Amino acid sequence: MPQQRKFTLKESDIPTHWYNIMADMPNKPLPPLHPGTKQPVGPEDLAPLFPMELIKQEVTSEKWVEIPEEVRRLYSIWRPTPLYRALELEKALGTKSKIYYKYEGVSPAGSHKPNTAVPQAYYNMKEGIKKIATETGAGQWGSALSFACKLFNIECEVFMVKVSYEGKPYRKIMMNTWGATVHASPSNLTNAGRTILEKDPNSPGSLGIAISEAVEVAATHDDTKYSLGSVLNHVLMHQTIIGQEALKQMEIAGDYPDIVIAPFGGGSNFAGIAFPFLENKLTGGKNIRAIAVEPTSCPKLTRGVFRYDFGDTVGMTPLIPMYTLGHNFIPSPIHAGGLRYHGAGAIVSQLLKDKIIEADAINQTECFDAGILFAQTEGIIAAPEATHAIAEAVRQARQADEEGVSKTILFNLCGHGHFDLSAYEQYLEGKLVNFEVTQEEINESLAELNTPVI
Amino acid sequence: MPQQRKFTLKESDIPTHWYNIMADMPNKPLPPLHPGTKQPVGPEDLAPLFPMELIKQEVTSEKWVEIPEEVRRLYSIWRPTPLYRALELEKALGTKSKIYYKYEGVSPAGSHKPNTAVPQAYYNMKEGIKKIATETGAGQWGSALSFACKLFNIECEVFMVKVSYEGKPYRKIMMNTWGATVHASPSNLTNAGRTILEKDPNSPGSLGIAISEAVEVAATHDDTKYSLGSVLNHVLMHQTIIGQEALKQMEIAGDYPDIVIAPFGGGSNFAGIAFPFLENKLTGGKNIRAIAVEPTSCPKLTRGVFRYDFGDTVGMTPLIPMYTLGHNFIPSPIHAGGLRYHGAGAIVSQLLKDKIIEADAINQTECFDAGILFAQTEGIIAAPEATHAIAEAVRQARQADEEGVSKTILFNLCGHGHFDLSAYEQYLEGKLVNFEVTQEEINESLAELNTPVI
Repeated sequence: MPQQRKFTLKESDIPTHWYNIMADMPNKPLPPLHPGTKQPVGPEDLAPLFPMELIKQEVTSEKWVEIPEEVRRLYSIWRPTPLYRALELEKALGTKSKIYYKYEGVSPAGSHKPNTAVPQAYYNMKEGIKKIATETGAGQWGSALSFACKLFNIECEVFMVKVSYEGKPYRKIMMNTWGATVHASPSNLTNAGRTILEKDPNSPGSLGIAISEAVEVAATHDDTKYSLGSVLNHVLMHQTIIGQEALKQMEIAGDYPDIVIAPFGGGSNFAGIAFPFLENKLTGGKNIRAIAVEPTSCPKLTRGVFRYDFGDTVGMTPLIPMYTLGHNFIPSPIHAGGLRYHGAGAIVSQLLKDKIIEADAINQTECFDAGILFAQTEGIIAAPEATHAIAEAVRQARQADEEGVSKTILFNLCGHGHFDLSAYEQYLEGKLVNFEVTQEEINESLAELNTPVI
Repeated sequence: MPQQRKFTLKESDIPTHWYNIMADMPNKPLPPLHPGTKQPVGPEDLAPLFPMELIKQEVTSEKWVEIPEEVRRLYSIWRPTPLYRALELEKALGTKSKIYYKYEGVSPAGSHKPNTAVPQAYYNMKEGIKKIATETGAGQWGSALSFACKLFNIECEVFMVKVSYEGKPYRKIMMNTWGATVHASPSNLTNAGRTILEKDPNSPGSLGIAISEAVEVAATHDDTKYSLGSVLNHVLMHQTIIGQEALKQMEIAGDYPDIVIAPFGGGSNFAGIAFPFLENKLTGGKNIRAIAVEPTSCPKLTRGVFRYDFGDTVGMTPLIPMYTLGHNFIPSPIHAGGLRYHGAGAIVSQLLKDKIIEADAINQTECFDAGILFAQTEGIIAAPEATHAIAEAVRQARQADEEGVSKTILFNLCGHGHFDLSAYEQYLEGKLVNFEVTQEEINESLAELNTPVI
């Protein structure tokens, strides 16, 4: 009898509630502040952008929020997702540790993003919204929301960072296939976009600019709302179905992780897998180490400061208490586009400040070393974002071996890399480079900040 | 309680045996003939190309062939695959029929092809083979074999049809990621390739030419064998794990199909889903209609002749008793590259001749109409090949509705279309065209045949 590799759940095992970690946090995050008044934002400040049900979820202190039946029904298009023991990777490493991974790449859009896109579209539909505007970098979030909007016949308008719009045409076609309209950002369609283009007609765009464009469209149209794929509390909460399923699957495996790992962009991926395990830890149950992994070229968790900062570059969003490199920080052009973000969500930032979680930074070539090893052993070609988790799992397994111990390691394989193969090509041709951030660059970006200190 | 959408199996449900339909066929296929002597080929004729165990499987009359434990263990990297009830598609069609699909796109290579690539690589490894040469059109088969060879540390050399090599660079990178060497075919590396290039230095290549190149490499190197992704008996047999799983899953669903549908290129996809249901039918159990769906632009099953023909263009392979358009027939450049093949495997051809199975032909735009509808309802963006099965399922559901009856329809969704999005783009831009084949073109191609008539 060979060792079991795959741990599957039934449709009826799809979680019935999202987990709200705020209920269990020893220190709650500070409130977001209005960008103008610098006073805590109220529901009315957010109402132009989000449907009321999501605003409630953003601030709720309820520990478990029920998942609407219709959302659960649609989750079953791709959920429950499989959990694997990485038997071939373990063999290749010759490690004594056990490595498990939860695979979110089986969703239609190819990542964990539909876990929140579907409920967000659902609540917008319930409140009669006809259109949702959003931004996307490499395209993972934009395609997830396009798919979700199509399920509810909501129009979807995506502002895609121009350099990705031009470099990843397949992601754009995917969004079009699901009926979405996609614009290269900066565009001529918004004041934000026009302002940027006036200064620099050849601007390659950035996530911050694209957010500003999408927010402007939502704020200036009554029937249109805005949607974000990470950072916010309700987004992180929606993702906790990943970890809840993983808890059940680890139980079937007769195991429990010592270490839980996820890549870190804004926090939704990490929250998804780690929070349900942290629930145990925070309520007196089993301890784990939860490690958020960021690129060394965008090191807000390991080298940033904890203070209020904007979610976007232009300064239109509320001020969030976060680990940040400054909202003007321009991350280097690494392939993990989803991790090229200057800040971290409020909850994760507070957890890191309180040392309930850990952070680590890994450079691009070490990530792709691990990605290639993973593809050649486990078969799956991972998204560049996901290779950060693989690389950290490899680090932890090797360290355990050096210490002569065996650890149980679980990581979130948040997406496949089918649209990122040019990154693999660069690696295989020896052309992939690392990007270093000097302390001067970080200091310079932070010196520009005039946001409230904490 | 919502209707169940997804029917999953456990790792322990992975079939233990492949099903050999030859044991149950009322009329066995005629033997393949040696291309030179025109006499039935013996094991010794095939030995330069295939390991002995696969040659045995090619001719065995055993009904159930045991799957080696190591192969079953590796199957669990992606198997069992899910079976879905297409609830959202049914709703969109407003049909009274029930539509189910088996989804093979969850494999690392994105299609059903690894089901045979892994055992083929395994048997080569067992017999000490160091390298396998193969051809690939759009890249599905080449990537499956690259992945399989990496699992056993066998070198893999892929001759990829030049027009695809240039047009689908991601497929090439995928193969490289799994360690394979990929050449554009025709190449300067073989006599077959050089001969073609002398006549036409700008030849875009064809599957037939690429087969000739790979066969030549295998035939002229002691440590190298050849591997084929469809057509042959052992390849079709390996795929029957699809239908065996589907049988169990339909049982869990409390249902049994009236109609089983699959796209048809050489036969492996169709055999995979249909043969285990035909086992029932051929041994006095439940009846079903099994429908093989081909493109109208490559209609060997619906408009070809039943006679001996070569598997390749150059005429190096054994002569196979098949429905064929003639080995010189050049299919139009449809996006379903995997269905651009002049002939059909011997077993499927015999079953069609004996009216045990049916065939239908659908044109490119009707297939993409169905593909878009499927993406916008079920979420999955299907490979162009797979859209043929979707389109046929839609046809059958609509016909049942016209007749006022409800049918249970099952089709094989053999792969995702992540590397075929330019086809979707053409469709969305209204640029996708149909290709008609005139009877004169077919007659002309068949008139050139000097192979044995049956």
